[in-house]
Amino acid sequence: MKDLKLAGGKSPKSMIEIGEATIGGKEIILIGGPCAVESSIQMRKAAASVKRSGGKILRGGVFKPRTSPYSFQGLGLEGVNYLAEAAREEGLLCVTEVIDAKSLDLVVDRVDLLQIGARNMQNFELLKLAGKVNKPVILKRGLSATIEEWLLAAEYIMAAGNPQVILCERGIRTFEPSTRNTLDLSAVGVAKELSHLPVIVDPSHAAGRRDLISSLSKAAVAAGADGLLIEMHPNPEEALSDGPQSLTPEQMMTVAQELEQVAQSVGRIFVRGKTEETLEALRSEIDQIDHTIVKRLSDRMEIAKKIGNKKRLDRVKDTARERDILQRLVPLAEELQLSPEFVKRIYSCVFEFSVQSQIKSKLMEENELESYCPIGGK
Amino acid sequence: MKDLKLAGGKSPKSMIEIGEATIGGKEIILIGGPCAVESSIQMRKAAASVKRSGGKILRGGVFKPRTSPYSFQGLGLEGVNYLAEAAREEGLLCVTEVIDAKSLDLVVDRVDLLQIGARNMQNFELLKLAGKVNKPVILKRGLSATIEEWLLAAEYIMAAGNPQVILCERGIRTFEPSTRNTLDLSAVGVAKELSHLPVIVDPSHAAGRRDLISSLSKAAVAAGADGLLIEMHPNPEEALSDGPQSLTPEQMMTVAQELEQVAQSVGRIFVRGKTEETLEALRSEIDQIDHTIVKRLSDRMEIAKKIGNKKRLDRVKDTARERDILQRLVPLAEELQLSPEFVKRIYSCVFEFSVQSQIKSKLMEENELESYCPIGGK
Amino acid sequence: MKDLKLAGGKSPKSMIEIGEATIGGKEIILIGGPCAVESSIQMRKAAASVKRSGGKILRGGVFKPRTSPYSFQGLGLEGVNYLAEAAREEGLLCVTEVIDAKSLDLVVDRVDLLQIGARNMQNFELLKLAGKVNKPVILKRGLSATIEEWLLAAEYIMAAGNPQVILCERGIRTFEPSTRNTLDLSAVGVAKELSHLPVIVDPSHAAGRRDLISSLSKAAVAAGADGLLIEMHPNPEEALSDGPQSLTPEQMMTVAQELEQVAQSVGRIFVRGKTEETLEALRSEIDQIDHTIVKRLSDRMEIAKKIGNKKRLDRVKDTARERDILQRLVPLAEELQLSPEFVKRIYSCVFEFSVQSQIKSKLMEENELESYCPIGGK
Amino acid sequence: MKDLKLAGGKSPKSMIEIGEATIGGKEIILIGGPCAVESSIQMRKAAASVKRSGGKILRGGVFKPRTSPYSFQGLGLEGVNYLAEAAREEGLLCVTEVIDAKSLDLVVDRVDLLQIGARNMQNFELLKLAGKVNKPVILKRGLSATIEEWLLAAEYIMAAGNPQVILCERGIRTFEPSTRNTLDLSAVGVAKELSHLPVIVDPSHAAGRRDLISSLSKAAVAAGADGLLIEMHPNPEEALSDGPQSLTPEQMMTVAQELEQVAQSVGRIFVRGKTEETLEALRSEIDQIDHTIVKRLSDRMEIAKKIGNKKRLDRVKDTARERDILQRLVPLAEELQLSPEFVKRIYSCVFEFSVQSQIKSKLMEENELESYCPIGGK
Repeated sequence: MKDLKLAGGKSPKSMIEIGEATIGGKEIILIGGPCAVESSIQMRKAAASVKRSGGKILRGGVFKPRTSPYSFQGLGLEGVNYLAEAAREEGLLCVTEVIDAKSLDLVVDRVDLLQIGARNMQNFELLKLAGKVNKPVILKRGLSATIEEWLLAAEYIMAAGNPQVILCERGIRTFEPSTRNTLDLSAVGVAKELSHLPVIVDPSHAAGRRDLISSLSKAAVAAGADGLLIEMHPNPEEALSDGPQSLTPEQMMTVAQELEQVAQSVGRIFVRGKTEETLEALRSEIDQIDHTIVKRLSDRMEIAKKIGNKKRLDRVKDTARERDILQRLVPLAEELQLSPEFVKRIYSCVFEFSVQSQIKSKLMEENELESYCPIGGK
Repeated sequence: MKDLKLAGGKSPKSMIEIGEATIGGKEIILIGGPCAVESSIQMRKAAASVKRSGGKILRGGVFKPRTSPYSFQGLGLEGVNYLAEAAREEGLLCVTEVIDAKSLDLVVDRVDLLQIGARNMQNFELLKLAGKVNKPVILKRGLSATIEEWLLAAEYIMAAGNPQVILCERGIRTFEPSTRNTLDLSAVGVAKELSHLPVIVDPSHAAGRRDLISSLSKAAVAAGADGLLIEMHPNPEEALSDGPQSLTPEQMMTVAQELEQVAQSVGRIFVRGKTEETLEALRSEIDQIDHTIVKRLSDRMEIAKKIGNKKRLDRVKDTARERDILQRLVPLAEELQLSPEFVKRIYSCVFEFSVQSQIKSKLMEENELESYCPIGGK
Repeated sequence: MKDLKLAGGKSPKSMIEIGEATIGGKEIILIGGPCAVESSIQMRKAAASVKRSGGKILRGGVFKPRTSPYSFQGLGLEGVNYLAEAAREEGLLCVTEVIDAKSLDLVVDRVDLLQIGARNMQNFELLKLAGKVNKPVILKRGLSATIEEWLLAAEYIMAAGNPQVILCERGIRTFEPSTRNTLDLSAVGVAKELSHLPVIVDPSHAAGRRDLISSLSKAAVAAGADGLLIEMHPNPEEALSDGPQSLTPEQMMTVAQELEQVAQSVGRIFVRGKTEETLEALRSEIDQIDHTIVKRLSDRMEIAKKIGNKKRLDRVKDTARERDILQRLVPLAEELQLSPEFVKRIYSCVFEFSVQSQIKSKLMEENELESYCPIGGK
Repeated sequence: MKDLKLAGGKSPKSMIEIGEATIGGKEIILIGGPCAVESSIQMRKAAASVKRSGGKILRGGVFKPRTSPYSFQGLGLEGVNYLAEAAREEGLLCVTEVIDAKSLDLVVDRVDLLQIGARNMQNFELLKLAGKVNKPVILKRGLSATIEEWLLAAEYIMAAGNPQVILCERGIRTFEPSTRNTLDLSAVGVAKELSHLPVIVDPSHAAGRRDLISSLSKAAVAAGADGLLIEMHPNPEEALSDGPQSLTPEQMMTVAQELEQVAQSVGRIFVRGKTEETLEALRSEIDQIDHTIVKRLSDRMEIAKKIGNKKRLDRVKDTARERDILQRLVPLAEELQLSPEFVKRIYSCVFEFSVQSQIKSKLMEENELESYCPIGGK
């Protein structure tokens, strides 16, 4: 793929910074909002929900490329104003789709990112225009575009002067009828192998049904996606488009909470939306943390015993190793704004019980060995 | 889908127990091994690797349905013996593919599970035969089978008398050339919505390239899969088939380690393979655990401060709450074979520093407030 | 495609002779009949219709590979007897699908050709068995098989000893929902480029709706197919399977009549079914022929005029050329059992009017020229 | 499909008249030319070839939507002038692709038809603009567009005010790698069932290889297409794009000749390109016609005998029927500018020999019957 002069090359990974958000870094970026902007009140509710769920960017379409000419085509400029205002009120960034020169001109100064939709992925004139602006562009993969074609579409934008391209996998057309499209999560890995650009995933357009969004969002993050673009609507039943695939605010919140764990499990961060910080909620969080701490202390003790088994009884206590450990943990504690004294106290206790436990374990083992060797005397 | 008389219905979920493994329960089942059984030594090496990686089941094909009649067609009976012996030596279960009545007869008493491959998913006579045996059957989705057709194929096996069917998504045919097939992870959620049968995922045949296996395996587990079927080979460069998509033992181990975290993040369990227990390796594990413990202690302290902020200064110390916490943690410690005394000691330290930290924080806050209120007196 | 040792190579084209039929020769072979054999009377009606339409081979499934285990699975041996008897009564050959060793054994001596269905295209054990019999095999392309895989499946049969393979394109799986499958007529040309085997087309399974059969059948013949496999049923509304795509006997007859013309237009022959030979029908045929004859006489006269324009007036009459023409037509007449005297009489008339017409045309032309040359005298 | 307010409805069929060409009528319209306009001389050669082959419309792209930004993007306005001039010189119409508002403005007054390419089929803003002009628009089907979406795209153009839409099937994306796309000829029938708009076929982009163009062109016409869009290049080896799928002028001519027969066989007309009218070529044409005439006379005689067999010997000569035939043929002759006298002479000869032949046949039959009736005396 010699023509990927700018989009090609696996590293260094591009990180696209917009306000406080960085797409392509360690953090998973959540983009949420309705398919179409319908009213000011709808967008304000959506923005509040997105914010609460930990989203950084509010989405909403105002120029809708609809299959039928008789479907709702979007609110245009009026809609952009609703979108931008709702985002600003909640301290969110915002993104909307552009479909031609005119729509691009109209919104470029009012939003933080532009989106180019799947149906326009090879609208090369539009790509060139998007290459002339100084705003990040989310480039959706076409319904039947190969990954190579998708990257070459990104190359069009970059070759025209705009390096801030974010790739978005959103499902491809296959024979399978139970989902609107087939989400191709291999594309995340392949695109990241061929290109340094960030890759996000839109599970909503892929599935076309809200019951799969949670499962696919987690899968996308686990597959290495840098972000998610999820459709949500304050009231999906009344949505003017894509209602069946939009989450309610509550569902959005649940998905966000699940994502936090998955992100962490693959070495990423997702700062989940804050649940309301009632005393009850905070205590429940502490209880979960305590559970983890005890669990990990138990894991530690198990391994310590194994180490003990490899040592002579008089070598179980290993002061050098203990010092070593503290030399790593104290700076970590400081970095985390935790009292070093506290960590030292905790670990002196850990070391003490660890040694005790190892000795106990070794003595039991010897007894056992003895009982298995009836012939040999002491 | 009225014809899913036996396979249909979302719950209760089927759990298929084979020896000590349960497919469809909380645990993620890892199945690993080479595409084709080639020799006794190859299978023994593969079995050791699978075991070490936390796998429960060894796979290996002995009747190979190959696209060309001139490709290696498998070792047949000789191969089954290699497979079964290698599995037994490591305490693993084993599975192989059957392709007709003859091959089924030959292997049914030698392996623990049968596999029906993608190309035979609608070989209805074979499905009926598989319905007559008392062994679990892994049923791979056909290359262009809809999810409904796949479930109806399962129904064939069940209607013939065998309820132990495990569905396996392995990629479908699409236009995308960068992967051998397109892994359809939506299929996991859809199949689980329509059926109570366990669903596992084979990322190896889907991707056809080993660099995507890690990413897709994690995604599969996050999407809700009950297990993974991964191709590995002691020496992929010399594999008689599917070398490019087979992991080395080392890569298999790495994937397994990653899976543990992801499984946990979605409320599942994967008991990862043990790394070799050198002193060094064990200490490295301890270091990782210590890192987590300190991190979680820091998280805990942050939340404690927020709670503190909601209380009057003289109410920061809350003995009842402390007792409450210990009443939950002590039984947990016992369950985990951890000394209750140890946990109490640790937590008395945690409580002490937590109160200190809250008080300090409150005082600082008051000072700050003061400094912002120059007009107010003392 | 080095593995196409037997199936590969564009020429010489294989011609498969069965009774009086030759598949792969100049004649287009029509195979017709119901999806499933249902009764003796149904098959007799079907056979009569196929015969009348110019079909050479009667089809009918008795072992039906159905998507659901609860659908009609075929009459088995009883059905084969109905099929074979109905075919024999009408002097037709017959073909049925085999699905495993048992079904193959049961029918191999009762039918003239075997069919291997799309779902079994890569049931390699079945292919090997089909390679051991001395009957031609129609090998349908799998729903998502590439042309290369299809040819390699043929190679399996040939490598096992049976060179009589007939390829059958029957539509592939795509995203398009308005037809059951997408008929890939490029496959005819590609397969014929890579292989010497005959290629037939099954428009019925491709379209899944009878209104497209006529259009697709003509297209298949025009694309170079060697035959057609068309589903028909004496009473489609009552068919136990595939009713919506089955033609009625009347529709079958209409399609057959259309095919005759198309076959001829691409240098092939299809001896269309006989309409019932009422006086009326015969006269209608004569009327059509007369129309063509007059039309061609007119074309001939046009060209003759052009030739005339190239000659001097006194050379218009060209006795040598006339003799030449007759020397070719008289033997042709004899071959066609037409009286040579008749042809000579007709052509003496043709020559006479042709000369007259040319002279008239030349004179008119000169007059016209004159009128354009005002300066020249009379 | 309630939204097909203007494009829907099977009949009456739309006929789009442009100059002397009518698309959607009885005549098959051939559109030919290179993928990209490269030079004035190239276009003049192409135009001559298209004209000679019977084409009515010259095509050539000047704004090329290329997958890579570094591929040749077209000559723009300079190219349109080459295209339009070359077409005018040969008396052809011309068409070029438009890709946005600017390109449309630039070419709309210089060409006779506009084309909207597959990648822009759902560029709805472009569709709306094309709906505002008074030129016919060729609308290519998107690479993964369903037929319904294609018709709705046409509806966009029509709803904006332009009823002159010509649908063009050009292959869809599937898994099959041996052709660039898979030509979906079922789409011709389906589109004509749902809509009254003309449908043409582009075999060149579908196949992506020139060896299949002949086969697919014939198939398209047989399937009911109203026209063909074929890529040709005076020198494909030097083409700046799509060389491998472009025909040479000679190949274009051959395809055109083949089409004439196929068109006729399905009741359509294609006035094939004139071969050079040497005496030799003209005579060869006459020879072919003579062959057909004699063949049809023989067919006629066969049927006449069958009719004879149904009549009493004294009724063989049927003056009323003969008069009847001539009453139909004489006006036909006049319409075809054939001398009625000539037709009468020919048919008096036909009638005479027909009666003779019938009588002879009946006498032979009686003799035969006699010889089978040994009991009856002479």
